[in-house]
Formats: sequence, C-alpha cells, structure tokens
Amino acid sequence: MATIPAERLEQFIADAFRAVGIPTDDAATIAQLMTGIDLRGLDGHGIFRLPPTIQRIKAGGINVKPTITVKQETPSTAIIDGDNAVGHLAVNKAVQVAMDKAEQCGVAWVGTTNNNHAGAASIYAMMPMERDMIGIYMAVGSANHLPPWGGIDMLLSTNPIAFAIPGLEEPPIVMDMATTVASYGKVKMAADRGEIMPEGWMIDAEGKPLTDPTRMNDGFLVPIGGYKGYGLALIIGLLAGTLNGAAMGKDVVDFNADFKSLANTGQLIIALDIKAFADVETFKRNVDIVIRSMQGSATLPGFDQVMVPGQQSHEKLERFTHDGIPVVAPLMARLDALAAELKIDPLN
Amino acid sequence: MATIPAERLEQFIADAFRAVGIPTDDAATIAQLMTGIDLRGLDGHGIFRLPPTIQRIKAGGINVKPTITVKQETPSTAIIDGDNAVGHLAVNKAVQVAMDKAEQCGVAWVGTTNNNHAGAASIYAMMPMERDMIGIYMAVGSANHLPPWGGIDMLLSTNPIAFAIPGLEEPPIVMDMATTVASYGKVKMAADRGEIMPEGWMIDAEGKPLTDPTRMNDGFLVPIGGYKGYGLALIIGLLAGTLNGAAMGKDVVDFNADFKSLANTGQLIIALDIKAFADVETFKRNVDIVIRSMQGSATLPGFDQVMVPGQQSHEKLERFTHDGIPVVAPLMARLDALAAELKIDPLN
Repeated sequence: MATIPAERLEQFIADAFRAVGIPTDDAATIAQLMTGIDLRGLDGHGIFRLPPTIQRIKAGGINVKPTITVKQETPSTAIIDGDNAVGHLAVNKAVQVAMDKAEQCGVAWVGTTNNNHAGAASIYAMMPMERDMIGIYMAVGSANHLPPWGGIDMLLSTNPIAFAIPGLEEPPIVMDMATTVASYGKVKMAADRGEIMPEGWMIDAEGKPLTDPTRMNDGFLVPIGGYKGYGLALIIGLLAGTLNGAAMGKDVVDFNADFKSLANTGQLIIALDIKAFADVETFKRNVDIVIRSMQGSATLPGFDQVMVPGQQSHEKLERFTHDGIPVVAPLMARLDALAAELKIDPLN
Repeated sequence: MATIPAERLEQFIADAFRAVGIPTDDAATIAQLMTGIDLRGLDGHGIFRLPPTIQRIKAGGINVKPTITVKQETPSTAIIDGDNAVGHLAVNKAVQVAMDKAEQCGVAWVGTTNNNHAGAASIYAMMPMERDMIGIYMAVGSANHLPPWGGIDMLLSTNPIAFAIPGLEEPPIVMDMATTVASYGKVKMAADRGEIMPEGWMIDAEGKPLTDPTRMNDGFLVPIGGYKGYGLALIIGLLAGTLNGAAMGKDVVDFNADFKSLANTGQLIIALDIKAFADVETFKRNVDIVIRSMQGSATLPGFDQVMVPGQQSHEKLERFTHDGIPVVAPLMARLDALAAELKIDPLN
C-alpha cells in the first residue's frame, strides 16, 4: 500500500483529465473534488473512480467541453443542465447557485439534469457550511442493484442522501448514506478479499440471505429497515431524478457496464441559511452540546465509544492531510496503466 | 370493535376540545386533522391521542388560547411560534406559510418552535399536494426511546420523516417513517396483544435481542440500518428541533410521563413547487410510470404484490371513508370515560 500526498494525488487527477481533453480549469476543479473525497476516506468514490471515468470519456460517453447552464430558475430553485459533463462540474455549479439563492431567500433547492456520476454525496453537502449554511444532497445512483421491497426486478439504485451540519468547536456532523444496508462497493471489496458477508447485506431471488460475495450477481442489496429503505430510495430517485427530468428507475444506465449511452444522471442540493433561523454562533454551540451529549453516552458491551456521523471521516481527513492518502496496490496498478496509456507522469 | 363514521369521529373530537376551553374554530381544525389521521389508518396518532392530549390540557401543559405567530421570516423560510398550542394548530399554520412562500419562491422551509406533538407526519407532508407541491415533514418525537448507536443513554426519539409526491391517475406516494425498525406504539400494541416481538425491534442493555414486549422498559428501539437510522434521527432532531430553538436530545420532555412541563416540540415542513421544475401534468404522469413499474416487478416468494409507500394507507382511506373508522374496544372504553368526564355525547 502506497501513501500519496494529497497535492500529488490532485495533480495526477488533473493531468489525467487534461490528457483526455478537459480544459485546465475544469480538470483542476474535478481533481480538487475527487481528492477531497479520498481525503475523507470515502475510497470507493474518489480516485478509485478515475479509470472508469476516463474510460467513459474515451468511449464518448461524457462531454469534455460542456456548456453547463441554468436551465430554469425561480428565486429559490433552479435546474442545472450539465450538458453531459463530468458529474462533479455540474453539481459544483448547482451548489454555488444554491448558496447564492439561499443567501437571498433563506433556503434554495437546486437540481441537476443531463449529468453524470459526481462522486461522494457528502462532499457537496459540506460545501454550504463555508457560508454558514446547512447542506442536504441526494442523487440517483449510477447502477441499479435494488429491487422494490418484495420484488426481484432491479429497478432502483442505492440512491444516497447526505447532510452536513456545522458545530462550533466540534467537527461538523456529516452523514452520507446509501439507502441499503451495505453499498455495492462494500460487496465488491468483500469479494476481492475473499470474505463472507454478514447476513442482512444481500438476499437471493428466493429471499434467502446471500453471504458469498462471489455470488453477488445472483442477488440484491437489502434496503435499510426493509420497506423503509426501499421507500427512501424511491423518493430520493423521484426528487433527484424524475423532478429534474433525469433518469430514474428502469431508465438508469449502468455505468459499470455501459460507457457510451447518455447517463442523464440527476442530483439535488438544498442549501439552508442558518441565520434565517438562529444566531449562527448560538446554533453551532447548541450543535456542539448535542454532539457531546451523544458522545458522552454510556456504551453497550462491544463498543468503546459513541460516535456522531462524520466523526470517522473527519479523523481520516486529519490523518490523510498530514500523512498522505493510502492507495492499495490493485488500484495503484490500474493508475499506473492509466498513466502509461495517457502518457502522463505516474502517481508514485 | 366499533366502526364510526368519520363525521361523527370528527364531531366528537371537536366537542372534546371545546369542552376544555379550545375556541370553536381551533377545535374544528384539530378535529379535522386528527380524523384525517384515523382515516388513513395511522391509528396510534389520531383519536388514540385524544385522551392524553385532553389530560395534558387539564394539567396545564398546553395553552388552549394560543397566539400563534410568525416569529421570524425570510422570503423562503419562517419559524412559527406555537405559543404552546395543541401541536396540530401550529404545524397547520406552518404548512400554510410554507405553501404561500413556495408559490412565490419555488421552495420554502418553515419550522415550528414552542409547540406540542402534532399527530402523524404524513398528514402535513400531504397538504402541499393540494397546490401541486411536494411536501416533506420532519419532527422531534415526544419521548426518547432511542440511544445513539453503540450507546445506552436514551437521548433520541424515533424522530419521523414524511414525504408526499403526487401522481396523476395513481394515488400519491406518501412515506411516513420512524427512524427505528418499529415504533414504540407497535411495541405497546404487541404487549397489549400478548405477542412476542420479532428479533430486530428492540435490544436490551447488553445489546441482546429483546422480544418480550412486557420488558420494553429494559431495552431500546433499534434504528433502521443500525448507525444509519441513528444518524437520521440525530439530524432530523437538529433540523426540526435545535435549528428552531425547540427541544432536542436530553431536553425532550416525555409526553407519556410528564403532562405539565413545557414540551417545546419542534417540527419542520418543506413545500416544493413542482412547476418550478417541470410541467406539472408531465411530472405527475412520470410519477405514475415509476409507481406502475415498481408495482409491476416480479415478486419474491412470500409476497403477493409489490407496493409503493402510502398505498396501504390510501386503501384504508377509501375503505374507512365508505365504511367508517374502526375503534377497538379498549380505546372506546377510554373515549366513553372521557365523554363522561367532559360531559359531552359519547362517540357511539
């Protein structure tokens, strides 16, 4: 396992995107966002996604010179047309528009359409905190691994939702969750490691627990809380997809299998201005009080401590900023092959 | 089990509230909302809550002649001060304010403070649909039955979230979920019936499954998806409680045990104007397509059909509107006692 300084990782990503025709500024923006994902240890969504994203660009499935526009707007809402860009760019624009509107109106809800996969949800939910706002982000996932509850047709993705709420002295509460018990990435990692999965992650077409991850194609992910997680995935898909005129349900293109078809991915960001509700410092102090009261709870047997959402990612952020970002050998091999293919300096 | 026409149930509720000093118009509003809850079969939140609400009023824990005000506002946000009213009144006002603001701005987010328990979440999430809007509602629950994940201190309620999204020919998608696998009401109903609970509803202080509902006080509810449901409950509490200056976490008053202390319950409603994003009829038609594709899925063994959230409640609404609302004998006995105490006509 190599450990790469964040600056180097970011430069490598920018080099790769420039090499396939993405303009310098856009390449820098994507590289910064992808690196931010790896810095928080969300390692299935950062540089891990660089090779398939480059593959999609080379297959003609992504527009390298998009014109990202505000397709329609009201004082507190907008739809951003991504023009089939690398997803990060249109969501980044959506967050900026949402923050400007929330500054004026108190809250804003901005969706994207005609976009692509944009990496980890929490990165976007966290952005409004720079302006003392709360962020909420939802997205239609880029592959369907979830049937409706009681069904077996793969009609839904693990459609994620993320929230970010700032504290004063405490790190922010940042929640980033798939609506399934385990993400598909976790299943793949278990397969890579030759591990057996716990019961509850997947079921087979008979409804029986599926614990052998090499049989993942014979089964489905299980939604959190059964029908509740299914309902959340459905609603997130309607809000982030259907409402924006983006793909949802059976129209979702599997980005692991099809590198060419228009994905038409949809996302949404809500920015909520704290000062519309409360004195900002008082609110943040009250968030700290809540965080500390949770962390101060006595623990169940088997638990050392009680954490709040985002705490582990924040600890990784501090460690990886200081020590560098770990890159496992199989990924490094793929990145070396990519560097050779694109004729850019290797990462390490 | 008696079956009571909705009009009679509504009249009885209004009579009860008038008898304890609530003005006629307010009593009618609460009665209509409570009856709407029972009509959808959400039977732990409707007339079931009438006797304890009257008890709270008699104990001085609720203000019968509140002045409900807009405490502060921006173009797209507001906080409604409930003045310690029966909760339904302030949330009803919050929804009206949110719809008016969303009409102007595209989206609105309105919170409540200084309020009380307001019944079932879905009733409020559904209101914006009257004006072709999507509704999202969150609330801080009125009793803590949930520790943070890995903890044993009862610091959180089952803080619910509800969404309502209209279809064109299909009934709306209405999701109303506690952030725990089972609600506390379901546990109490299992105890009443002498049933054993499935594993996964509750754990005891050792972290072991608790399946005997008569031992409910020795254990805690289990959040959906483990740490995910805990995170959702925490965030809903911060957004619906802390941000509005309402009670959250350790400050929540248990409304089953304390009928006198100021509850300072917080809720929030988001109204999202569909026409800010899409042609309304086209959107609703696309929702129908998604609904039908979910319902059209092949099923797992043990399932007759795939449903969408709100489908069962909608079926109950149609049946109960036609046939009347079922009231179980123990509840009827409590309502008869209440009628005698308040010197109003009995329900049946």
